[in-house]
Amino acid sequence: MTGAIPVGLSGRPVRVGLDVGGTKIDAVAVSPDGDILARLRRPTGWGEEAVVVSIIDAVDALAVDGGFARSAVESVGVGIPGLVDADTGRVLHAVNLGVESLDLAGLAGRQLGIPVRVENDVKAAALGAAVLRGVDGSMAYLNLGTGVAAGIVIDGTIWRGARGTAGEVGHLSVDPNGRLCGCGQRGCIETFCGGGALARAWDRPGALPVRDILDAAEAGDERAAGLRADLFHGAAAAVRALVLSADVERVIIGGGLTSLGERLFAGVRRALQTGAEASPFMRSLHLDDRIELLPAGSPAAAFGAAVVGATTPSKEIVSHG
Amino acid sequence: MTGAIPVGLSGRPVRVGLDVGGTKIDAVAVSPDGDILARLRRPTGWGEEAVVVSIIDAVDALAVDGGFARSAVESVGVGIPGLVDADTGRVLHAVNLGVESLDLAGLAGRQLGIPVRVENDVKAAALGAAVLRGVDGSMAYLNLGTGVAAGIVIDGTIWRGARGTAGEVGHLSVDPNGRLCGCGQRGCIETFCGGGALARAWDRPGALPVRDILDAAEAGDERAAGLRADLFHGAAAAVRALVLSADVERVIIGGGLTSLGERLFAGVRRALQTGAEASPFMRSLHLDDRIELLPAGSPAAAFGAAVVGATTPSKEIVSHG
Ligand SMILES: [Zn+2]
Ligand SMILES: [Zn+2]
Repeated sequence: MTGAIPVGLSGRPVRVGLDVGGTKIDAVAVSPDGDILARLRRPTGWGEEAVVVSIIDAVDALAVDGGFARSAVESVGVGIPGLVDADTGRVLHAVNLGVESLDLAGLAGRQLGIPVRVENDVKAAALGAAVLRGVDGSMAYLNLGTGVAAGIVIDGTIWRGARGTAGEVGHLSVDPNGRLCGCGQRGCIETFCGGGALARAWDRPGALPVRDILDAAEAGDERAAGLRADLFHGAAAAVRALVLSADVERVIIGGGLTSLGERLFAGVRRALQTGAEASPFMRSLHLDDRIELLPAGSPAAAFGAAVVGATTPSKEIVSHG
Repeated sequence: MTGAIPVGLSGRPVRVGLDVGGTKIDAVAVSPDGDILARLRRPTGWGEEAVVVSIIDAVDALAVDGGFARSAVESVGVGIPGLVDADTGRVLHAVNLGVESLDLAGLAGRQLGIPVRVENDVKAAALGAAVLRGVDGSMAYLNLGTGVAAGIVIDGTIWRGARGTAGEVGHLSVDPNGRLCGCGQRGCIETFCGGGALARAWDRPGALPVRDILDAAEAGDERAAGLRADLFHGAAAAVRALVLSADVERVIIGGGLTSLGERLFAGVRRALQTGAEASPFMRSLHLDDRIELLPAGSPAAAFGAAVVGATTPSKEIVSHG
């Protein structure tokens, strides 16, 4: 592990980071040197109260696992899907968790007696990926999971944009005749490379539909080959959109589809190379050299949440400035 | 005019800004209060030497027109197409001007005896639009001319990105079956709403092909109606790409196609509204309320160049920091 994170004034040696997903919480305890002292996964409760309880329980379980007292925890950071007000720690519309409006930082912070900061999960993962991979300048984290979203980090800071939609490239349409997206548009990038959209288009039983698609494509299934091409094409389109709009130096791909490993990475690279063959302009961007893939099961999201927890809120920075 | 620009240490009262285009230079003299004291247009020479001469001549002519001595000029800023190293003032690959590699800041600065700063024309126009429209937070300037490009300004500063491609949304493909773009890809945003691409697709004689397309569409020509729909669709796609990637608060549309005025603005707004009707997510972004159109003939590009000239280079800021 690389990337030290700030030691607090109290000198407590542990930062906790939690990536709260629709079904499970990924929790890490991080030392001031950025080493992961303990890591565990636990199921997430459904609904506002249960989410808070799951978070408290995860911190307690992590302390037991890591062999440290809860009083050794300096801060807790939480990455969670939905609209997050990072200044107040309030979460809105986290539909996968049954959360409509929740003062997560306030409730969890009071129960734990430790400062809790909250961030959108993809933004937290972006920050975690930037620290873990030692990226100094600008980068985007492209999350390929059930859905598709990206977070942008510039010089070690999450780029928020004006209204929190920075990096929402999943819902850029790249084909007016493409599949209908859950958002109501046609041909969104997410309809090409989102795990949910691909599973619906494949429409066969199986625990890992996108893996099944790649396997079937390799075995000669034409429909699977079409969906595999969509996957690579969509991810390449997302990379282009991030570089041509925000001009990030690197794009780091994470999310559930990273379990496909080299097959995913090689396919996206090839799609970018094919695009570059047709276009001198694209060739000049060297996009195929600017992407990387997180290893399957990377703790980037939980680690990033720990970094979020270690960060002074922007409001405090402003008021002291 | 709104937006004061910095008075230099010398206290000289005039900032000159030049927007150097393929056929003409738009030149303004600006007071410290941001008032435009004089403005003129002159033809641009072809080739490296001639471009420098045109710039010197434009400054001289502006001084005559504005009734001030050249010694009253504190700084000169130049916006120019092509790859610009804003720190050194060197211009590369300005193909429309016959420039391959030119130390423009050095040559013009020595001949004028005044500091000259150089910036990419679209980035300079973006800065000018931000100052003229009094935009505080984040905005993109979407230039609809022969080609399509955008510049991003955050808190009054040009957003450069990692390699200078920030805002290059013109070459995002939004239709795999679309028209072939000059860049080699199919269905680039520029093939939908670039004046050059529309003129080629229309392929009838006329001084203002895009205006002819709108006129013919209003008279019932079906092919013209299709191209008109492309124009509005492409501009709307550019707005979406800028907001969903970089999450700018506002998008200000400028460039040659602004001569179409309200017909352009209403069409782009309608395209954004139609997209929002189909998509609750798009509806939540209120894109139709976040665009504005510069008036035809706006001095934004030349004014922005004057602001560039008044700005301390980032290298100096860093070395003093
Ligand atoms: Zn969508
Ligand atoms: Zn193109």
